[in-house]
Amino acid sequence: MGNIADIEKDTAQWYQDVLKESEFIDYSPVKGCFVFRPYCYALWENIKCILDKKIKETGAQNAYFPLLIPESFIKKEAKHIEGFSPELAVVTYAGGKKLEEPLVIRPTSETIIYYMFAKWIKSWRDLPLKINQWANIIRWEMRTRPFLRSTEFLWQEGHTAHATKDGAKKNAIEMLQIYQDFIQDYLAIPVVSGIKSESERFAGADSTYCIESLMCDGKALQMGTTHILAQSFSNSFDIKFQDEDGNLQFPYCSSWGMSTRLIGAIILVHGDQNGLVMPPKVAPIKAIIVPIYKNDEEKNKILSKAYELKEIFCDDGIKVEVDDDEQLTPGAKFFKWELKGIPVRIEIGPKDIEKNNVVLVNRFEKEKNKKKKVVSIENVGNELPQFLDKIQNQMFQEAKKKLGENWYQSEKLSEFGENLSKEGGFYEVGWCGNADCEDSLKEFKASIRCLLEKKKHPSCFLCGKSSKTDILVAKAY
Amino acid sequence: MGNIADIEKDTAQWYQDVLKESEFIDYSPVKGCFVFRPYCYALWENIKCILDKKIKETGAQNAYFPLLIPESFIKKEAKHIEGFSPELAVVTYAGGKKLEEPLVIRPTSETIIYYMFAKWIKSWRDLPLKINQWANIIRWEMRTRPFLRSTEFLWQEGHTAHATKDGAKKNAIEMLQIYQDFIQDYLAIPVVSGIKSESERFAGADSTYCIESLMCDGKALQMGTTHILAQSFSNSFDIKFQDEDGNLQFPYCSSWGMSTRLIGAIILVHGDQNGLVMPPKVAPIKAIIVPIYKNDEEKNKILSKAYELKEIFCDDGIKVEVDDDEQLTPGAKFFKWELKGIPVRIEIGPKDIEKNNVVLVNRFEKEKNKKKKVVSIENVGNELPQFLDKIQNQMFQEAKKKLGENWYQSEKLSEFGENLSKEGGFYEVGWCGNADCEDSLKEFKASIRCLLEKKKHPSCFLCGKSSKTDILVAKAY
Repeated sequence: MGNIADIEKDTAQWYQDVLKESEFIDYSPVKGCFVFRPYCYALWENIKCILDKKIKETGAQNAYFPLLIPESFIKKEAKHIEGFSPELAVVTYAGGKKLEEPLVIRPTSETIIYYMFAKWIKSWRDLPLKINQWANIIRWEMRTRPFLRSTEFLWQEGHTAHATKDGAKKNAIEMLQIYQDFIQDYLAIPVVSGIKSESERFAGADSTYCIESLMCDGKALQMGTTHILAQSFSNSFDIKFQDEDGNLQFPYCSSWGMSTRLIGAIILVHGDQNGLVMPPKVAPIKAIIVPIYKNDEEKNKILSKAYELKEIFCDDGIKVEVDDDEQLTPGAKFFKWELKGIPVRIEIGPKDIEKNNVVLVNRFEKEKNKKKKVVSIENVGNELPQFLDKIQNQMFQEAKKKLGENWYQSEKLSEFGENLSKEGGFYEVGWCGNADCEDSLKEFKASIRCLLEKKKHPSCFLCGKSSKTDILVAKAY
Repeated sequence: MGNIADIEKDTAQWYQDVLKESEFIDYSPVKGCFVFRPYCYALWENIKCILDKKIKETGAQNAYFPLLIPESFIKKEAKHIEGFSPELAVVTYAGGKKLEEPLVIRPTSETIIYYMFAKWIKSWRDLPLKINQWANIIRWEMRTRPFLRSTEFLWQEGHTAHATKDGAKKNAIEMLQIYQDFIQDYLAIPVVSGIKSESERFAGADSTYCIESLMCDGKALQMGTTHILAQSFSNSFDIKFQDEDGNLQFPYCSSWGMSTRLIGAIILVHGDQNGLVMPPKVAPIKAIIVPIYKNDEEKNKILSKAYELKEIFCDDGIKVEVDDDEQLTPGAKFFKWELKGIPVRIEIGPKDIEKNNVVLVNRFEKEKNKKKKVVSIENVGNELPQFLDKIQNQMFQEAKKKLGENWYQSEKLSEFGENLSKEGGFYEVGWCGNADCEDSLKEFKASIRCLLEKKKHPSCFLCGKSSKTDILVAKAY
């Protein structure tokens, strides 16, 4: 693997190499901006399609709001502007003229959406109002990395308004659960969820719930968040509704989002030295058929069988391709599709076809454990879906095992600090709730990823005073 | 219809009123920017879903390119910058600092896409390369109107590279045909297609093909374009491939796009005094069930039947809703859903249910011709799809009839100029090919919409010299 850095020694370089070699992305000369090449975009389309359905099932409706937001809107909610102002990209000229008021490219759409909610919400009958948007977002980040922290990214952002705080809270928790189930069931990534500490909260939120997962280098990645905004934005944007008794009230809002960061997580959780590994349920191509032949007679027979199989799978809704490239050897094809992480390779050679068999190879299994599975052509239509399910499950179990192996119970920073620095991992400890103790983690480039609901650890990891809640500590992307 | 202007006397105001009253869009304070409210966005999702499938069937793959383009990119192709520079929105500040090079928000993505093509294309084996992108676009227009000409709009843009000019031409023509079929078959809008005159060509194209259709006020709307870019961008961006003989060549490119303008066309072709009229094949909701009852006993019986019917339709993939609002009278509901243009209203009242019937009402038929169709509940599952097909066909035939009635054959501007000014319409005339004769149409706020392939008219509409080709003249949006 000459062009790909060692995944264990230099994960950051491996990540870059794999993205490039698999033709997954390409870079714009603009810092932090990159191209989603077709194979990558097909993965995002699959994610979007499944998640969109789940979001609509909650009663949320899709809409689309303008990209450009008046600067004055962003300034309306005090904490919101404080959080986002360092990251804004600003349009000052348009149509050849200097604009009277600069326009900000949305770093998130709370302000323009709640401005509209103020026009649309009049009565308790209009609540709850649940709107979702699929959009591109610009945040001018200092250090960028494709998917994980990029200048432009794609996401969905849900925004809701409710008559009661409890309504907003329930919605934030419902969406957290939907996100969690989606990530575990479709991306095969085990997660931890909980509430953020005050310092890590979304700019303008009352509470932020988050989903964290463990990447292969021991760092945590925040994969999705849901927020109880309470009345902060309804106050700032003067959203009011008449309640059942005829009194004017401010509604309680929530918002929630997941982004193309999910793609980064798939790569960093499942990838290996040979390249990407796609979870079958979201993989753009489920299986690649590689024909193996030595002469034209074999070629014709094998290729026609390969195309026939492809059609059968496609009719069943399983996207399968045939690699009929005449320039590459079968070995070069194996290498290429392993790099792209196609879950299953289907080999058909002259001996297989003689015995009416094909060979299924599991991308996820590591070389030394790899067992080829011989299946009769009659049965492959039934066998492949089962094989894909098995791989999906294997991937989740393996990631869960790794999470368990890197989850530490500890009491004191002095005990776990060194390991945290060197190896990363998740540390479950107690916390007194004091921000100074939280700040001490910066020295280790770590942070509180979330508060855990339980309280197993009696004392604070730093000051030793009585703990208020268990927390999860990790280095993070 | 107190809140809606007269469609014939003031189409522009009617358009605005209908968009607002049907809760289709809302306005941002930023000029020309507006919100796609859920009902409107659902229409766009339906359009996108069908069109996306047709685009993929041509072998094009979706990808996503950055929103922000270096200003220097836009300047690389001389005609391109000339065409787009008056419309650019420019980011000059980001992350709190002035940028070294201003960034332009994409007014179209040729430049960034062909910059990437130069990296991706090496050999004739890489061709043809066909990429499509669904994206938001910003063009700072002087006069804006939702969907028709707005600061921000949504679209798809296809970009392809071919080894030969013929390959690029074939692709541009293939896409023109796909667009034309889509508009006629799904949006029920008859179209005219042809080549643009030089002055109306896309900035940077060798030839531009377009699709034009007639709006209810007699103006033409350009609904889609495809371009043969030839080698203009491959020269500017130094895209080169090695041909089969080992020589370096510049590929020939094409590009093609349709946008949310299609939504404006649906409104302006099919809308009537009562509001929007949605073509069944793309309608977000195919039918609305309005229960009619006088007491609780009737209500329970009728509502449960309504929900049951809704489930049956949804299982068949036909989106049907029940309007169970208790605040509105049936009459107010009829009004509301007519305004939104739901193709079919299904009424269920006490007498209907007694006879085991429902009543289907066709939104498209005008009041005086409206015949209610009584259908037995057992048969409605079969009848509704047929009824929707019938409406789709009726809408196309009616629009085709109007197009015919407003299509004039003429020889001289002095003969048709007055009618063109007053009534609009499409004028088929001869043209010598001279730009001065073309310019004379500006006086009538009209233009050559496209060249027609035939040559029925012997002499130029203005100078009377020998005609080179027939053209279509109209006022345009």
